[in-house]
Amino acid sequence: MKLLLLNGPNLRLLGTREPDIYGTFTLADAERLAKETAEKFGVALDVFQSDIEGELVSAIGAARGVYDGIVINPAAYTHTSVALRDAIAASGLPVVEIHISNTHKRETFRQVSYTASVCIAQLQGFGLNGYALAVEGLINYLNMKK
Amino acid sequence: MKLLLLNGPNLRLLGTREPDIYGTFTLADAERLAKETAEKFGVALDVFQSDIEGELVSAIGAARGVYDGIVINPAAYTHTSVALRDAIAASGLPVVEIHISNTHKRETFRQVSYTASVCIAQLQGFGLNGYALAVEGLINYLNMKK
Amino acid sequence: MKLLLLNGPNLRLLGTREPDIYGTFTLADAERLAKETAEKFGVALDVFQSDIEGELVSAIGAARGVYDGIVINPAAYTHTSVALRDAIAASGLPVVEIHISNTHKRETFRQVSYTASVCIAQLQGFGLNGYALAVEGLINYLNMKK
Amino acid sequence: MKLLLLNGPNLRLLGTREPDIYGTFTLADAERLAKETAEKFGVALDVFQSDIEGELVSAIGAARGVYDGIVINPAAYTHTSVALRDAIAASGLPVVEIHISNTHKRETFRQVSYTASVCIAQLQGFGLNGYALAVEGLINYLNMKK
Amino acid sequence: MKLLLLNGPNLRLLGTREPDIYGTFTLADAERLAKETAEKFGVALDVFQSDIEGELVSAIGAARGVYDGIVINPAAYTHTSVALRDAIAASGLPVVEIHISNTHKRETFRQVSYTASVCIAQLQGFGLNGYALAVEGLINYLNMKK
Amino acid sequence: MKLLLLNGPNLRLLGTREPDIYGTFTLADAERLAKETAEKFGVALDVFQSDIEGELVSAIGAARGVYDGIVINPAAYTHTSVALRDAIAASGLPVVEIHISNTHKRETFRQVSYTASVCIAQLQGFGLNGYALAVEGLINYLNMKK
Amino acid sequence: MKLLLLNGPNLRLLGTREPDIYGTFTLADAERLAKETAEKFGVALDVFQSDIEGELVSAIGAARGVYDGIVINPAAYTHTSVALRDAIAASGLPVVEIHISNTHKRETFRQVSYTASVCIAQLQGFGLNGYALAVEGLINYLNMKK
Amino acid sequence: MKLLLLNGPNLRLLGTREPDIYGTFTLADAERLAKETAEKFGVALDVFQSDIEGELVSAIGAARGVYDGIVINPAAYTHTSVALRDAIAASGLPVVEIHISNTHKRETFRQVSYTASVCIAQLQGFGLNGYALAVEGLINYLNMKK
Amino acid sequence: MKLLLLNGPNLRLLGTREPDIYGTFTLADAERLAKETAEKFGVALDVFQSDIEGELVSAIGAARGVYDGIVINPAAYTHTSVALRDAIAASGLPVVEIHISNTHKRETFRQVSYTASVCIAQLQGFGLNGYALAVEGLINYLNMKK
Amino acid sequence: MKLLLLNGPNLRLLGTREPDIYGTFTLADAERLAKETAEKFGVALDVFQSDIEGELVSAIGAARGVYDGIVINPAAYTHTSVALRDAIAASGLPVVEIHISNTHKRETFRQVSYTASVCIAQLQGFGLNGYALAVEGLINYLNMKK
Amino acid sequence: MKLLLLNGPNLRLLGTREPDIYGTFTLADAERLAKETAEKFGVALDVFQSDIEGELVSAIGAARGVYDGIVINPAAYTHTSVALRDAIAASGLPVVEIHISNTHKRETFRQVSYTASVCIAQLQGFGLNGYALAVEGLINYLNMKK
Amino acid sequence: MKLLLLNGPNLRLLGTREPDIYGTFTLADAERLAKETAEKFGVALDVFQSDIEGELVSAIGAARGVYDGIVINPAAYTHTSVALRDAIAASGLPVVEIHISNTHKRETFRQVSYTASVCIAQLQGFGLNGYALAVEGLINYLNMKK
Repeated sequence: MKLLLLNGPNLRLLGTREPDIYGTFTLADAERLAKETAEKFGVALDVFQSDIEGELVSAIGAARGVYDGIVINPAAYTHTSVALRDAIAASGLPVVEIHISNTHKRETFRQVSYTASVCIAQLQGFGLNGYALAVEGLINYLNMKK
Repeated sequence: MKLLLLNGPNLRLLGTREPDIYGTFTLADAERLAKETAEKFGVALDVFQSDIEGELVSAIGAARGVYDGIVINPAAYTHTSVALRDAIAASGLPVVEIHISNTHKRETFRQVSYTASVCIAQLQGFGLNGYALAVEGLINYLNMKK
Repeated sequence: MKLLLLNGPNLRLLGTREPDIYGTFTLADAERLAKETAEKFGVALDVFQSDIEGELVSAIGAARGVYDGIVINPAAYTHTSVALRDAIAASGLPVVEIHISNTHKRETFRQVSYTASVCIAQLQGFGLNGYALAVEGLINYLNMKK
Repeated sequence: MKLLLLNGPNLRLLGTREPDIYGTFTLADAERLAKETAEKFGVALDVFQSDIEGELVSAIGAARGVYDGIVINPAAYTHTSVALRDAIAASGLPVVEIHISNTHKRETFRQVSYTASVCIAQLQGFGLNGYALAVEGLINYLNMKK
Repeated sequence: MKLLLLNGPNLRLLGTREPDIYGTFTLADAERLAKETAEKFGVALDVFQSDIEGELVSAIGAARGVYDGIVINPAAYTHTSVALRDAIAASGLPVVEIHISNTHKRETFRQVSYTASVCIAQLQGFGLNGYALAVEGLINYLNMKK
Repeated sequence: MKLLLLNGPNLRLLGTREPDIYGTFTLADAERLAKETAEKFGVALDVFQSDIEGELVSAIGAARGVYDGIVINPAAYTHTSVALRDAIAASGLPVVEIHISNTHKRETFRQVSYTASVCIAQLQGFGLNGYALAVEGLINYLNMKK
Repeated sequence: MKLLLLNGPNLRLLGTREPDIYGTFTLADAERLAKETAEKFGVALDVFQSDIEGELVSAIGAARGVYDGIVINPAAYTHTSVALRDAIAASGLPVVEIHISNTHKRETFRQVSYTASVCIAQLQGFGLNGYALAVEGLINYLNMKK
Repeated sequence: MKLLLLNGPNLRLLGTREPDIYGTFTLADAERLAKETAEKFGVALDVFQSDIEGELVSAIGAARGVYDGIVINPAAYTHTSVALRDAIAASGLPVVEIHISNTHKRETFRQVSYTASVCIAQLQGFGLNGYALAVEGLINYLNMKK
Repeated sequence: MKLLLLNGPNLRLLGTREPDIYGTFTLADAERLAKETAEKFGVALDVFQSDIEGELVSAIGAARGVYDGIVINPAAYTHTSVALRDAIAASGLPVVEIHISNTHKRETFRQVSYTASVCIAQLQGFGLNGYALAVEGLINYLNMKK
Repeated sequence: MKLLLLNGPNLRLLGTREPDIYGTFTLADAERLAKETAEKFGVALDVFQSDIEGELVSAIGAARGVYDGIVINPAAYTHTSVALRDAIAASGLPVVEIHISNTHKRETFRQVSYTASVCIAQLQGFGLNGYALAVEGLINYLNMKK
Repeated sequence: MKLLLLNGPNLRLLGTREPDIYGTFTLADAERLAKETAEKFGVALDVFQSDIEGELVSAIGAARGVYDGIVINPAAYTHTSVALRDAIAASGLPVVEIHISNTHKRETFRQVSYTASVCIAQLQGFGLNGYALAVEGLINYLNMKK
Repeated sequence: MKLLLLNGPNLRLLGTREPDIYGTFTLADAERLAKETAEKFGVALDVFQSDIEGELVSAIGAARGVYDGIVINPAAYTHTSVALRDAIAASGLPVVEIHISNTHKRETFRQVSYTASVCIAQLQGFGLNGYALAVEGLINYLNMKK
């Protein structure tokens, strides 16, 4: 079993970016925690980050047949990208959407997610720990499907 | 450390209620999984279910000073209850909102949550396993706060 | 064959409550007419009224396996209760929604019915006689299904 | 006492038109059931169907002084015709609106009825049997007014 | 110079139709007043009434080259007919829209006029006398254009 | 019988102000035409223009008992002034609203009139001639009331 | 003369609940002040608090013939309860709505009051003192009606 | 194989009607081009035009079993006719919707099509040539289905 | 301690203006009651009325350092004046908003208050007596602040 | 070349009015900076401030033929005044709109500008310095037009 | 004459991507059919596909002077990209928009096209064959313009 | 002190792109003017243009610690990019938003700016000269902060 962790725009800046909203951990911390969580279940996990919507779309398009599932933090593209939504639906893979902050506490335009309704599940507000929960939840889902 | 798990209206029917949406597990299964997850971390967890909005409001009002945090599945009241929202805000406790199904795949009126923005975090779509993830996430949050 | 007639909030006041809108008959009159109509078809009919949303939810939850169908006048909860809607959907029973007045002649917020789309049929504006028509319509539906 | 039954656009196709929504009965069946129901109460009933909005408007305009009440299934014109609404209001006659299917289960634009608020009552979702209930309800209304 | 006066659905009922809104004059009164007003200016005026939207559309389509201008009371079709709007625009003729009642005092859906923005002018609320003012205003407009 | 003609903001600029929309006549032309029209019917007519909303409000407030009716071109205040609306309603006088251009051809915010629904009638798009029609219509109304 | 003071959900928590919004006084303080104010005018006042919407509905339903008027703080149910609105309208009693905080400074959903338009008056933002003003205002109203 | 070409209101005026929007070709030109295109594929094509919504509804209702598919330019009724939509759905035939102009460049109310979602395909903006493309596209669709 | 009472447009007409809505008392009555109430608490109160929005704005701008608080009935400007709102916010003074009628019973546009959210409190529907309650409430607020 | 600087309601209070939003400079400072900037380019600049919408309208109406361009800070009237918009359009002069604060960071109702779309340009958020930039930008525009 | 065919995000996945919506043909099939259609008319056609919005923008920006027209399937960017819209408008070239599926049958957000109103024409729902029709329609347009 | 000037999609086409909206100057002209303006104040300024949203996001992400402030013309991404907004907020740098045209005169969707509310200031409609004003305004802001 092999998973892909995708992180979207501005997430390279974690650690310095508005720490009262996003915490003080870095992207490397989040990727490491996701990998370690997967390994606890004997599952491999690759990571990819891009600020470019189309590169995330391509990455999901290439995931079919290579990965068993995806954890994605689409960041700002959550609220504006039909292309990401279509990519997830086209992939046929189970996808879990994660947000570091609780978007319900924020601006109205962050209440809209184009991607959540083509994912199997969504979680938000758990900070760094959310990456562990998302991976654990996805693996549990895949084990149930077997 | 002591937690409270609250389940809202119609959740007593889990197992027989629209199993393609809610799965075949029962309320007892969900409560047991939540307790076991808490116990793994050495944490106690009480459970309460009611179909009556005001009883849930009263339960949250009485939780202050007794519990360290709450996991709540407000079910239908998520989308209509300002009273539950006020109860959560008034309690001053960290609360995690959970939904069994992915509400983003469902009717428009389920996209509104009066409660999520006064909770610390929200997760949905993980089925039974979501109860384990919610408890784990809340305990992790409380440990980080210490 | 056995039916359940549910009446929602404020319907205990029928007879004195705004008679130009709701007529001068009482709740007892409505329940009696429903029973008599059912009996004409050799069908039993139980009645229940509550002002509390959650008690109506519980009553519907308990109806499965006991009743063959429900006639419900959700009154004010028609327009605000997702919990009642979920209870009806969860019950798996055929339900007919009735309103004494023609809600289309009234306030905008009465044009919304959370419950009607999970019922098999709806009628409104027939006053007391509506209870007879609703019972007759539901029995006809059940006979067609046999 | 004499009633008029009006059926609107596309209802000539009943029986072959999307039977999962409209059932397998024909327009003739509906008109016959309405007549028989009226006759049970010693009431005469004429029928008219047209696909043309303006012909239905004219028919209602000519009904005053000839009929004591109208049962109308405005079909698609329910949702778009202010002219039908004005005709009903201008007639001064009691009118009952009927729909074969439960429009609350269907597209958003079918939730709007220009005609219902100038009718005395509305029913929907009872299939063929709805024609009997509508006639019965209208006769009951007229008898109460006497 | 020759004008056409068009009256839309339900206007045949003037005199008996809701006299508190529309007054007690008849369609014949309105047509006679319009003719007499035109004649005062040495202008001929033909009249046509139909309950059928498409017949009004055809009448406007046939007016080009025959009439110098149109006074129209589209009645209910004002608020719903793009076809009438397109007919007026296609005719290339100056058109004055008239309403007997002041639609601003009435239902929200009567605040929308598909036709007014392709007319040169609109007047409403003057009752029977409005027909005289509309004809006078149109003739004044045509004289100014010469 | 005595009438008051009120003109609102920017109407002092008539003649130079966007002549393709408002024509080339001046405010003096409009006031003269209104007076002459009134005099034809043996009626006196006073005029007042102000750019200040509150001065128009005061003028209407002072009109009661002095004038028998008002013709008003509220100009821009049509679309924004509840105060003018309240003044008209408070005056108890019959008021006719006039616009020089056809507001239906213009910006969306000009489709809203706070004042029209408390007036007896409204006309627009007749240019200078509209002042004659408005005065004539108001006098006709007052004569009918006698 | 006898009055009823009703307090809705979460108001039992006054004193500890978000004191920057609701102040530091308790429910007992508010009830005592209301009683003392009533007594100053020689009027009796009973109190009732419930977190359950339906219990408040029942209390209002039972008030007819027992009380001369009601002061109600519907709290969160202000914004969501058609049932409370219907209860107030059905009671036929004069009701004054009170809010401790100024809801206009708060979330958009608190700008909606289902109950205010069936009350005689509403006040908000006066904190504890509002209970005195509400009782005084209601008694003044009842004295004027005598 | 036999096709039906339907043209809606005002299309009889093609050639003279706003040629900057609709071009200078006539209805006869469009019908001839459609026929010639069909004949190239050995397919027969009948034509019908009406200004009356209900006649178009009846024509579609009568098409079942006679034609294999329909090309329709519903013109103004595109944006207002639920009856046409229901007729298309009831027919069970593949229908292609065509517009001469590109409606996306025009008024907001032309962005709504009640009919397009029950058609198999839609094209717009190709002018006269669009009739050839629509016929070609429909025949290709029917050949693929064989 | 010194207070200012401001009354907005059309309030000079109190007593004659729509007495079923505003009562039969005059502006002088309201100002006298406010003064007397203030004097009971040993507080001075000045009064000012204007129909002109900008004069009310200037009066509030000049109040700083002269008055300790303001009671304002902005009348129609409540619903349209951002300038009044800004003036209140700029003044830094505690302001109480009063309405004679219960605006919740009236038109939708009266449900919007630009001013209420920068006031400390609002009351409406108490008629003349509301002026006494507003002054009393403001003085109580100022005493609490001391 | 001669310019006019207009400042709207509440701007006389600059320096003391909410300094965290508007800064600590006074209206005199802003007017002086604007004059000095204009003089650097050899351009004269007059200033006018009023709290009264209609006085600003009159000032713009009188500017034609006297000034070559206008810099205006309409303050609160930006969001509510169609009269100011009409005055600017009627003047035929190039107008630059300025706001001291960045309105995009503020309430939703401040996102609407009735005036900006009839101005040549708009700037906001530059504080005092914005007056210099606005004058400079307007002079540059006028020089380019020569 | 030379044309450019642009395909947007996720279209590389055609053939495997949700075949019930998009069919079983591949991107290569679509590009080949477009080329063959163009060649039938003696016209050259180049192809380009990208998942990256900005690359499509650049491609259109570079097309001016190189190509005579563009056929574009903007896929998901249709509904979200103002940048693509601006690129098409900036290019000054005739552009035809194509969609494989009928977007009117799908989610609401797919009913919005930022690009269609700057294209000359749009077609959708014809599947693979749509590429042939789009090329044919564009060539016909270019030939008419010569 | 060092500044960064960012230009978004399609701005490479300046000079040829819709010159009536954007003028005839080129991107090089704008960049040169910005540099020269900065140099007048002894400030360095780098430039970057991209059609790709994600590259602009990355450029802003890399600007922290390198530049003291940013002038950005986000062009079409202004209206659709939450990612750019997040990048600006994450950078912690003062940013000035510039538009060449006055977006208030254009389509509704251009009235929305996701970026303006996280910028310190915005200006639009000044054409080429706007680049000079934006740089001047930003330097003035930075000097004030020192």
